[in-house]
Amino acid sequence: MSTYLTILGFNSAIPTVNSSPTAQFLEMEERAFLIDCGEGTQVQLRKAKARFSKINHIFISHLHGDHCFGLPGLIASFRLLGRETPLHVYGPKGIKEMLETIFKITETHKGFEVIYHELESKNSEKIYEDNRVEVYTIPLDHRIYCNGYLFREKPKERHLNMHEIAKYPEIETCDYHNLKLGKDFILSDGYVLKNEILTTEPSKSVSYAFCSDTRYLETILPIIENVDVLYHESTFLHDLKEMADYTGHTTALEAARIARKANVGKLILGHFSNRYHDLNVFTDEAREVFPNSFLPKALEPIKI
Amino acid sequence: MSTYLTILGFNSAIPTVNSSPTAQFLEMEERAFLIDCGEGTQVQLRKAKARFSKINHIFISHLHGDHCFGLPGLIASFRLLGRETPLHVYGPKGIKEMLETIFKITETHKGFEVIYHELESKNSEKIYEDNRVEVYTIPLDHRIYCNGYLFREKPKERHLNMHEIAKYPEIETCDYHNLKLGKDFILSDGYVLKNEILTTEPSKSVSYAFCSDTRYLETILPIIENVDVLYHESTFLHDLKEMADYTGHTTALEAARIARKANVGKLILGHFSNRYHDLNVFTDEAREVFPNSFLPKALEPIKI
Repeated sequence: MSTYLTILGFNSAIPTVNSSPTAQFLEMEERAFLIDCGEGTQVQLRKAKARFSKINHIFISHLHGDHCFGLPGLIASFRLLGRETPLHVYGPKGIKEMLETIFKITETHKGFEVIYHELESKNSEKIYEDNRVEVYTIPLDHRIYCNGYLFREKPKERHLNMHEIAKYPEIETCDYHNLKLGKDFILSDGYVLKNEILTTEPSKSVSYAFCSDTRYLETILPIIENVDVLYHESTFLHDLKEMADYTGHTTALEAARIARKANVGKLILGHFSNRYHDLNVFTDEAREVFPNSFLPKALEPIKI
Repeated sequence: MSTYLTILGFNSAIPTVNSSPTAQFLEMEERAFLIDCGEGTQVQLRKAKARFSKINHIFISHLHGDHCFGLPGLIASFRLLGRETPLHVYGPKGIKEMLETIFKITETHKGFEVIYHELESKNSEKIYEDNRVEVYTIPLDHRIYCNGYLFREKPKERHLNMHEIAKYPEIETCDYHNLKLGKDFILSDGYVLKNEILTTEPSKSVSYAFCSDTRYLETILPIIENVDVLYHESTFLHDLKEMADYTGHTTALEAARIARKANVGKLILGHFSNRYHDLNVFTDEAREVFPNSFLPKALEPIKI
């Protein structure tokens, strides 16, 4: 039940023979989330041998083509593969009109429900929650309404210390649940067994922040503070800072500043302009500020 | 100025790691035509090293996703590459609403004009003509309104026989045009020089017919008669004839019958169902009826 991130594509704007537009596959606590869906994402999912059919929630950062043009094809393929499970699609207002217009005109009869969650808020909001995971928006500053997404594992249950528990025959299997939740156990003679004796620390709950297209934006810092892994776009190097501002993007140096100020564990850069051929220039620049900066590797799952 | 066809993708429905949905790049008399545009076509064009920017006319057979989901991304990339030349898009009624809705919501500012030619007729019509090429629709019978397309080089100019012409000093350079058009030359003494003496036969004008998704349909025969190359879908083998009829498709045997009855030069099969792994079964079946049947080879230009 570890959390794995598979980056399916990370280049900006125009797909090329060797690189795909933005899409990521996140497996967290047995849930499978798709983040952004540029053209060709369904083929990238196949190349990554990702559990295609397990995707029940798709999060789209913004409605530029390089982040969403793979959606119609993916959803049409879901239908052809016989999907019946409802699919939740989170994204900016307009995503429903766009997809439903396409499905109407192409006579794509879905055969399963697509549930749209259209976003408009400029404040961070919790948009998904179940018993193990929660997802928040990270409002960004791009040329068009845009959100990043924060994925958080909830605090996990404590581990039973069976060696200690065995010493107290009064503790029965049905008591384990409360122990995992951290509750003390009161023996029949009134003696309180402290939970710390009967259990050990839970596994760490990890978090992942995806920051898609945005200008340098410090208001995201409290939202992404201390995340284990931050993906942050860095379309340009800092010598093109003006171009970055103009087009609504961030430089590698700025992405590293965000990572340092937010005290994240690891920074993955991405969304590089096609003008750069040797991508090591991005980590060279970022590591001056935040040494734990990395280039993405397409299709290779990384443990978070 | 030969005519070359590059098949960019030829599988049906769901794109896979090794095969792409329908798209073809046709170079005829220095024009570059794109026929259908499934998801990922822009990357296939790059892989084929096709003259991307020369495409001024796109012909879409029908509005099922595997034939058109690559259009928004291709057009968005044209813009990013600085295109200014108008782009003509031919396809079923509805194509304009679909694309313009997508462009509006994704804020794709095209920067060049997209001229839509929406088709509704159930009869073959000439939809494109210039001084060298003409294009006709081939009305098909699918689950949704669908046309194939016939591309024809117009009759070419005769070749000058310079050896003979040199014998008559009266013939000047300005007369060559009329000679190429087949006119006789009258010498000043009234003697008529027959054109056949001064010129040789023109190069052959070739033709190509693209028959996308359709049931077996004999009404197309007079339209495609004697074409040099026919691409005809053959989604199934003939033992699944019922399935083919039900889903609006043709079997390999039927495609071969069409080829034979229309007396075409060469048949290329395509749009194979994903259930078949060894595609040679299609040519095995088709060649029983029409020996000059072939499998498509993706990305390899073939001379027509």
